[in-house]
Amino acid sequence: MKALITGSEGFVGQHLAEHLSKEGDEVFCSDLSLGGPDLLDPVGTTGLIAKVQPDHVYHLAGQADVRASWEDPLMTFRVNAEGTLNVLRACQLSNVKRVICISSAEVYGSVEESELPITERHAINPSNPYAASKSAAEVLCKQMNSQGLQIMRARSFNHFGPGQKENFVVAALTKRMLLAQQLEQSEILVGNLATIRDFTDVRDVVRAYRLILTKGEGGNVYNVCSGIGRKISELATTLLSKINSELELKLDTKLQRPSDTPVLIGDYSKLHKQTGWEPRIGFDRTIEDTIEFTRTLMTQEL
Amino acid sequence: MKALITGSEGFVGQHLAEHLSKEGDEVFCSDLSLGGPDLLDPVGTTGLIAKVQPDHVYHLAGQADVRASWEDPLMTFRVNAEGTLNVLRACQLSNVKRVICISSAEVYGSVEESELPITERHAINPSNPYAASKSAAEVLCKQMNSQGLQIMRARSFNHFGPGQKENFVVAALTKRMLLAQQLEQSEILVGNLATIRDFTDVRDVVRAYRLILTKGEGGNVYNVCSGIGRKISELATTLLSKINSELELKLDTKLQRPSDTPVLIGDYSKLHKQTGWEPRIGFDRTIEDTIEFTRTLMTQEL
Repeated sequence: MKALITGSEGFVGQHLAEHLSKEGDEVFCSDLSLGGPDLLDPVGTTGLIAKVQPDHVYHLAGQADVRASWEDPLMTFRVNAEGTLNVLRACQLSNVKRVICISSAEVYGSVEESELPITERHAINPSNPYAASKSAAEVLCKQMNSQGLQIMRARSFNHFGPGQKENFVVAALTKRMLLAQQLEQSEILVGNLATIRDFTDVRDVVRAYRLILTKGEGGNVYNVCSGIGRKISELATTLLSKINSELELKLDTKLQRPSDTPVLIGDYSKLHKQTGWEPRIGFDRTIEDTIEFTRTLMTQEL
Repeated sequence: MKALITGSEGFVGQHLAEHLSKEGDEVFCSDLSLGGPDLLDPVGTTGLIAKVQPDHVYHLAGQADVRASWEDPLMTFRVNAEGTLNVLRACQLSNVKRVICISSAEVYGSVEESELPITERHAINPSNPYAASKSAAEVLCKQMNSQGLQIMRARSFNHFGPGQKENFVVAALTKRMLLAQQLEQSEILVGNLATIRDFTDVRDVVRAYRLILTKGEGGNVYNVCSGIGRKISELATTLLSKINSELELKLDTKLQRPSDTPVLIGDYSKLHKQTGWEPRIGFDRTIEDTIEFTRTLMTQEL
């Protein structure tokens, strides 16, 4: 199968490209950093897809940072919602058969503890501009799904692993802990440690994306998650123990996001039932691989 | 109260401006046709609202034509969704207290007969690009509602009355029937007469908007409708009887919209409970006023 990835040079895009190649797909990568079209340009986007003529499109490109979305809600909305519209229109025009668009568990917003874990039937209630932009993109996916173009959506919960950027919590904590250890500091400042998130290894996540694209049902949305909630404090403690550090964690309210969603735990039964997917890589192994990756990167930076 | 209307020169905007003035509001009108800012220009939009400093904003401006949305989904999305984002951001920056954004019953999409009449709890399932753009705008309204800025949404079902443009069914039928009568033709071509819609007089609709804005609850959405479903054929028959015509109605499939929603009937209990609103102007009177308005217009055009 000929597969096109938008946003191929991002954290998830790189892992996805590797996975698709291993599975025997013919992979085409598109990313602004590779000179690919700006997805806000409908002509450039249509041209890309008309040229590649992919069977499958993995639409990963977007503004993925919740914090940045508070700083520029308009650009976040345009890139994530209007960008998705342009990609889907281009797919229609080039007779692409199947597309997966990557949404986020953030669309659920705050959920009562009694309603956990969250299934796909749960109502949408975005509480930040990033979540609103992803919800709007989902509406477009739902409306534009048709007999001709099957559009699946993935609602991804937190994912982590080697290669993630430092504006995401695990990568940020790992690097700051390793640095503090090097500098023999006694403490580091951290944001809200009580927040509970559902973490999945990025390599399990990209495997889910390919299964959704190949076996999913058009018009449907699938949670991609582990089903296990972990406090950020647990994550921090595991990291500290893996690097043999006794650093103290000190709360800094400035590192907290406005209107942070306190608990997100997902239910992946639907995905499992339709594709057989389940997570394979354990939490500890991902932490170890992330530490190793970060250490290598820090050595190169010296 | 100082009230700003965006899209003030449209069909609904003109009736709303008249109603607000009668109620004693200080009314500011903004419309592209009056030289107002393009709402896709965030700077112009912010400047407008900063200059007027309204207490209340009625955000009516948008692309309101389902058929046109199939021809240009991108522009429809930008005007209706991104335009709303710009208006709401401008309201936040100028400390506006209350805003109403006008959505549409089209966001419900096709609904099973057993689920009629539709309440606000019904799921969103847009089936055309216009409905998708309005659903996306609604997501933004919900996310941006806050203690500082109360954002109410109206989901308006079909509305009609004097002044409506001919790309809407009642105005189109009225004009074409009167013309056929003048020309002594024996038949006119019509689209799908079996479609069922819920019609409210535009003057009742604008009264509902002011009540929602002044008495509604931020973050909430309110159906604006009559609760009565009427086939387009009933509408056509009433029109013919009011103009004493025996024209034959002949079906033309080219006049049918793609993926037209067969039945839309709303439930306005929530609006009634929170504001006391109910429709006052009967179907026959609206038809008569529309015919009179159209006759006057046709005389002027001669």
